Amino acid sequence: MIVTLTTDFGLSDHYVGVMKGVILGICPAAQIVDISHEVAPFEIGEGAYLIAQSWRYFPKKTVHVVVVDPGVGTSRRPILVEVGGHYFLGPDNGVLSMVYLQETCKVRHVTNEKYFLHPVSRTFHGRDVFAPVAGHLAAGVTPARLGKVVQDYLKPDFDKPHRAGKRTWIARILKIDRFGNIVTNIHVKDFGDLATRNFSLSLGPREVNVLARNYSETAPGELFLILGSSGYYEVSLSQGNAAKSVKCETGAAIEFLVW
Amino acid sequence: MIVTLTTDFGLSDHYVGVMKGVILGICPAAQIVDISHEVAPFEIGEGAYLIAQSWRYFPKKTVHVVVVDPGVGTSRRPILVEVGGHYFLGPDNGVLSMVYLQETCKVRHVTNEKYFLHPVSRTFHGRDVFAPVAGHLAAGVTPARLGKVVQDYLKPDFDKPHRAGKRTWIARILKIDRFGNIVTNIHVKDFGDLATRNFSLSLGPREVNVLARNYSETAPGELFLILGSSGYYEVSLSQGNAAKSVKCETGAAIEFLVW
Amino acid sequence: MIVTLTTDFGLSDHYVGVMKGVILGICPAAQIVDISHEVAPFEIGEGAYLIAQSWRYFPKKTVHVVVVDPGVGTSRRPILVEVGGHYFLGPDNGVLSMVYLQETCKVRHVTNEKYFLHPVSRTFHGRDVFAPVAGHLAAGVTPARLGKVVQDYLKPDFDKPHRAGKRTWIARILKIDRFGNIVTNIHVKDFGDLATRNFSLSLGPREVNVLARNYSETAPGELFLILGSSGYYEVSLSQGNAAKSVKCETGAAIEFLVW
Repeated sequence: MIVTLTTDFGLSDHYVGVMKGVILGICPAAQIVDISHEVAPFEIGEGAYLIAQSWRYFPKKTVHVVVVDPGVGTSRRPILVEVGGHYFLGPDNGVLSMVYLQETCKVRHVTNEKYFLHPVSRTFHGRDVFAPVAGHLAAGVTPARLGKVVQDYLKPDFDKPHRAGKRTWIARILKIDRFGNIVTNIHVKDFGDLATRNFSLSLGPREVNVLARNYSETAPGELFLILGSSGYYEVSLSQGNAAKSVKCETGAAIEFLVW
Repeated sequence: MIVTLTTDFGLSDHYVGVMKGVILGICPAAQIVDISHEVAPFEIGEGAYLIAQSWRYFPKKTVHVVVVDPGVGTSRRPILVEVGGHYFLGPDNGVLSMVYLQETCKVRHVTNEKYFLHPVSRTFHGRDVFAPVAGHLAAGVTPARLGKVVQDYLKPDFDKPHRAGKRTWIARILKIDRFGNIVTNIHVKDFGDLATRNFSLSLGPREVNVLARNYSETAPGELFLILGSSGYYEVSLSQGNAAKSVKCETGAAIEFLVW
Repeated sequence: MIVTLTTDFGLSDHYVGVMKGVILGICPAAQIVDISHEVAPFEIGEGAYLIAQSWRYFPKKTVHVVVVDPGVGTSRRPILVEVGGHYFLGPDNGVLSMVYLQETCKVRHVTNEKYFLHPVSRTFHGRDVFAPVAGHLAAGVTPARLGKVVQDYLKPDFDKPHRAGKRTWIARILKIDRFGNIVTNIHVKDFGDLATRNFSLSLGPREVNVLARNYSETAPGELFLILGSSGYYEVSLSQGNAAKSVKCETGAAIEFLVW
């Protein structure tokens, strides 16, 4: 049984290691795979993007744990999402939404405290709730034992641009990758015709209004938009680091005009 | 069998991967879990803190390898500590002390070179001593085969503040976490009454003299002390990064006045 | 079966996790070990150095995947190298050369697309070519099924200094380690007599012309050359970070005079 982990805990602290200890204590045969622990702190959209890009490459029955949880300790619910034969565990704050919005899913409110680590702390549900429940799922506990199916799970607001005017949208930065490419939440399924229209994307003092089909057709130092393999448009800088050059951060809003 | 690793080797070099190769070559069934490899170079106190916070979340029989070893190549001894059904391997420099100071333990000087990788280098005992011994322990070798029990293992000086005057203590920074919280070595078991006394903690040019019960009762930009889940007091900055704002580093001394 | 991974993908994106999902989907019993994912982007020499330093510490039959691949999407070939009972997978761009130059080897051009993930993308052969082939190798597929033996694999230019004059060589930085030590491609087997000759190494505005036998014989703030455990000479700064002090980067050329 595979358990994947996606968090904003970083790798310098002991938090991720402790979660693995809890999982392996319950399910010694689990294979644990890190997706990323470098999600920007509390950036739910980045966590949602990373797991949405990753889960299909794992075999069925994989348990995907996603902990980006600014609301830990409040009344936000832990949920289990079943999609396409995979299991997803995380807080009900939208971090699993890019998975469940695109597939037929079943969502459960995880309430059976028998599968938690006690006492449950107020600040570390990764260790006390999500890791032990993942361990039990990997060890064969059936989803129905964890809690009831719910319909009112959170619909997120970061999965696509918001309309702000006749030709104006407010888009958002989902992710900045290692090379400084800026992944936006503008998806080809919503904006498939950018090649035949005019557009302008504002990133700080810079404007992007060129759509490139591939990296080789751009000029050094030029900022351009390109369709990423994920289906989201990305802002890149030819032979450079786009994010550094415009000083933007994950989660930031960007004005997007199309006409 | 689980083997955990805590080192100051970082993840950009190949050292951690090589240690894992050695362990798996000896014990192919080992499950290896990283606690952290981002301990500040040579900061024994940080390594000691991380393993002390982590080990209880692993099942019994786990082998915990902790290599923060500024004295590698000198005559400092490799030791095996048995505590609560767990095994701990590391240099006898205090890096395992936060485990053995709080529990009944048995400490052995690891001398049986039959379980080392030969030739033993002068600079990489993680690979040549600790990894192979951990592999053999995980594979079932009994502790008694590794070496004799000793009593004169190192008592550390970083586990609590030192008295420096009637109301003055010299405390120490054990760890700076991802969010910039500064974990001190001031423990609630030694200073449980801070809420009812006056205190002042000096961090560079700044002083901290507010104890908060939770994050929500603090003002933005304010430095305050708060009791962490580990039992150690931490300095935090409301809506900010405390360590960056006071420019301090792991291992640094801090003056602590209580009256 | 062990599969090791060495890439320049970093750990903040999901790419490494996805590769692991693909491998485990094909070979659920695989033990996956990270060597490093922090190779400087596209620095083939650094990837070559890291795997060359690591592979001998793993048991035979280990599959070593090395993806530093600036030519992904072009016609460069994926190759499988068999050396000393180990398997190495990577692009035919020299990244495996420090292994095959020093040992008797068999090199195959991996052409059997039956073992690829389809459709094969133009940009992510780590996921679509190298990970699935590694999974199949770990699961027992024989090398002969992957493709034919070839002789014209790439001979690299970064494994040793180039002669540029009677006493002048152009050397290269293979790796900068966590402590800022600068590993050059000057090997003791080619330059074993530096202790008895004069030499000068130019790093930006600084010159290095002292060879130290150990760290203790150097003065604080002094840059010096020292023979690393890998057999390559390294530039170190006594009680400091050499790479930061001279502002150099992995892959940079350095002038090396010997007389």
